[in-house]
Amino acid sequence: MADMKRDVIGAKAAAIKLSAADTAAKNDALKAMADALDKRRDVVLKANALDMSSAEKMKDAGELTDAMVKRLKVNDDKINGMIDGIRDVIKLKDPVGETMSTMELDDNLTLYQVRCPIGLIGVIFESRPDVVPQIMSLCLKSGNAVIFKGGKEASNTNKALFDVLSEAAYASGVPKGAFCLMETREDVSAILEMDEYIDLLIPRGSNEFVKYIQSNTRIPVLGHSAGICHVYVDADADEKKALNVSLDSKIQYPAVCNAVETLIVNAKIASSFIPKMVKLFNDNGVEVRADVRTQKITGNAVKVTEAKESDWDEEYNDLIISMKIVDSLDDAIDFINTHSSKHTDSIVTENKLNALRFVDLVDSSSVFVNASTRFSDGFRYGKGAEVGISTNKVHSRGPVGMEGLMIYKYILVGDGHVVKDYAGKDAKRFKHRTLDKEFGM
Amino acid sequence: MADMKRDVIGAKAAAIKLSAADTAAKNDALKAMADALDKRRDVVLKANALDMSSAEKMKDAGELTDAMVKRLKVNDDKINGMIDGIRDVIKLKDPVGETMSTMELDDNLTLYQVRCPIGLIGVIFESRPDVVPQIMSLCLKSGNAVIFKGGKEASNTNKALFDVLSEAAYASGVPKGAFCLMETREDVSAILEMDEYIDLLIPRGSNEFVKYIQSNTRIPVLGHSAGICHVYVDADADEKKALNVSLDSKIQYPAVCNAVETLIVNAKIASSFIPKMVKLFNDNGVEVRADVRTQKITGNAVKVTEAKESDWDEEYNDLIISMKIVDSLDDAIDFINTHSSKHTDSIVTENKLNALRFVDLVDSSSVFVNASTRFSDGFRYGKGAEVGISTNKVHSRGPVGMEGLMIYKYILVGDGHVVKDYAGKDAKRFKHRTLDKEFGM
Repeated sequence: MADMKRDVIGAKAAAIKLSAADTAAKNDALKAMADALDKRRDVVLKANALDMSSAEKMKDAGELTDAMVKRLKVNDDKINGMIDGIRDVIKLKDPVGETMSTMELDDNLTLYQVRCPIGLIGVIFESRPDVVPQIMSLCLKSGNAVIFKGGKEASNTNKALFDVLSEAAYASGVPKGAFCLMETREDVSAILEMDEYIDLLIPRGSNEFVKYIQSNTRIPVLGHSAGICHVYVDADADEKKALNVSLDSKIQYPAVCNAVETLIVNAKIASSFIPKMVKLFNDNGVEVRADVRTQKITGNAVKVTEAKESDWDEEYNDLIISMKIVDSLDDAIDFINTHSSKHTDSIVTENKLNALRFVDLVDSSSVFVNASTRFSDGFRYGKGAEVGISTNKVHSRGPVGMEGLMIYKYILVGDGHVVKDYAGKDAKRFKHRTLDKEFGM
Repeated sequence: MADMKRDVIGAKAAAIKLSAADTAAKNDALKAMADALDKRRDVVLKANALDMSSAEKMKDAGELTDAMVKRLKVNDDKINGMIDGIRDVIKLKDPVGETMSTMELDDNLTLYQVRCPIGLIGVIFESRPDVVPQIMSLCLKSGNAVIFKGGKEASNTNKALFDVLSEAAYASGVPKGAFCLMETREDVSAILEMDEYIDLLIPRGSNEFVKYIQSNTRIPVLGHSAGICHVYVDADADEKKALNVSLDSKIQYPAVCNAVETLIVNAKIASSFIPKMVKLFNDNGVEVRADVRTQKITGNAVKVTEAKESDWDEEYNDLIISMKIVDSLDDAIDFINTHSSKHTDSIVTENKLNALRFVDLVDSSSVFVNASTRFSDGFRYGKGAEVGISTNKVHSRGPVGMEGLMIYKYILVGDGHVVKDYAGKDAKRFKHRTLDKEFGM
């Protein structure tokens, strides 16, 4: 614990230095990291073999799921992916130092709003060792220090990756201590209490894991604990688009947060649309749980079970979908605002006014028109890299790229200006004139 | 408690409707609120007289400070100020619906990032009834619903202001329930636990009060609990500017968060600068608490006491300043990063490289060059209105205007697009082309 606090304080100090590092130096370090990982991949593969053999035993004992074991596995292909990921970050624009706004307050008194790193990022993750290269490279490029805390099941792999990458970064001139890896079991709760030092937490793991972290810290958390997404098929939907979008939203990758869980259908289109949709789901191995109105329409040709009240709040992450009929667009919107996890919700309609009303009133981070919910993702949104998907209402929302690791500072440059001159009877007046001018001295 | 929860759920529902209100309707409501306050000022003055008579008794019993009682007082002048404040908000640009970025993902598949309200804002405040018109008007203009919880000492005044303003707003068409006033003593802790409904908390009160709120909720808090600001007089400072900026930073309004508490002086300029500075402070009634090196220079002509270690972390909010000599710019930066509350710190120097190093490495929300720390304020920054000053590292930092009440949503408009087409062997490629195009259907 004393060691940990010393490391965290060291990381905080390194963060200040890293915030002022120039782009070329950061890109050189990223290149060195990618090269080192390429050269020393055996170290990582050996460490991973150790973790995998324990993990198989833990799986047999019921301590790890099959999915977790799969995510833990590192092979040459995965290392190539990590290396490509680091090289992609080199190509991303350096966000540090960007002038966001400039205002002349008065003659020779100019206020600049300049983008800067947040400071010290805490990353708590389960199983996926690829979090280490991904977040380390994004934090480095954005000038942030980072503390990692991985799961016990991946401890050897995480340590090997961390050592290879951080040694290369430090040898390339990155301020020592900017990267930390916490190793003991006790550290999670200790990290959650470090709101004095850690500016932002990024959790990566199961919904329960993220929920636990969100509920047990005062540090801002960037993430989402659930992905209950909806598709609403409007009365004015194009039936073919509705079938395609609904099916893709469910089956293209059902295990992830942006897959649809509930399909809402307007009553006016239900008798034509629902039998086709349910058959399509059945043909693709999707179990349908429907409300009574929907069941009446599907008839006997297709397989449908009754939806329970709890189905409207369940994230299946599987080939299961709940279905419901509503009488109006507004009923659909109300239902979504009640049951959505505010991740991604989509309307299928040819009616522009209905589409506008839907995107205005659905209170979710991503709201789609005639598109699969599966598009909700940092890479598809063109962010180059994804820090996470946030359902927060402050700071960053939806798929978050490097911009989520940034904040700004105000820089006021004067010439000996004092507030006394702008107060009282003969007060000077502020100009408050917006300028198109980069910060500089 | 049941009533409160019902009100909060109602406010959340009203927030959705308010988020879609158009600018003209919001401005009409603001005008109605200003007019109603003008017409019904007697109601407010009468209510305030009740509070003032209890407050005087509470002051005699030591339950309220003199400053709190002063801030509680409402007269015609203060009501005029509130009315002007509401009218100023009418002039502010409506931030809702602004397209922040647009990207063509592929043909007929366009992603818009559109500014929208955060949702439901909680405001917890002591003494100052002017918080009600100020925050209510800012929230209305920015499309946010708001729950107020004021102190017992101002309960009559707050209720009168709230009733006059919210009745006028509702009569003008603002969704019913968008404004709530919590009245009982128990509500503070209940509000702090409502992270499921309240998206952002704004506390207004003493440092201890803000600190208490920050430490007892998982809701994001926009604010600052301390204002320990520094002025650093560099070796290359212009002496006259240094004297003026330091004096103004201390005495122009010592009771507020952006007044300086510690003056740091480079050793190279100390023997000339310090005697003049200390004399100037003494002449203006400022008590000086200095480190040993500073004391040696001031001599006997002026009054200086010894600074204790605790002085470097104390916010005097009074005519007291601590002073310290450092040997280098970097020592000054380290000292500031250790002791500053990350609010506002200023360097006085003619050396541009030193100024750049200072603004790069001082990790505060406002960093100044040759300007008084007292400029750190939403009105002086040209924001039109100030929601608060934030020392957070996420969302909003420094003086925060209406932009602190805003977030964004992503709107993806397609034509039946599915992710399946962008995956696998013959995957279509994304265009990811930035467009200069407003959101619209």
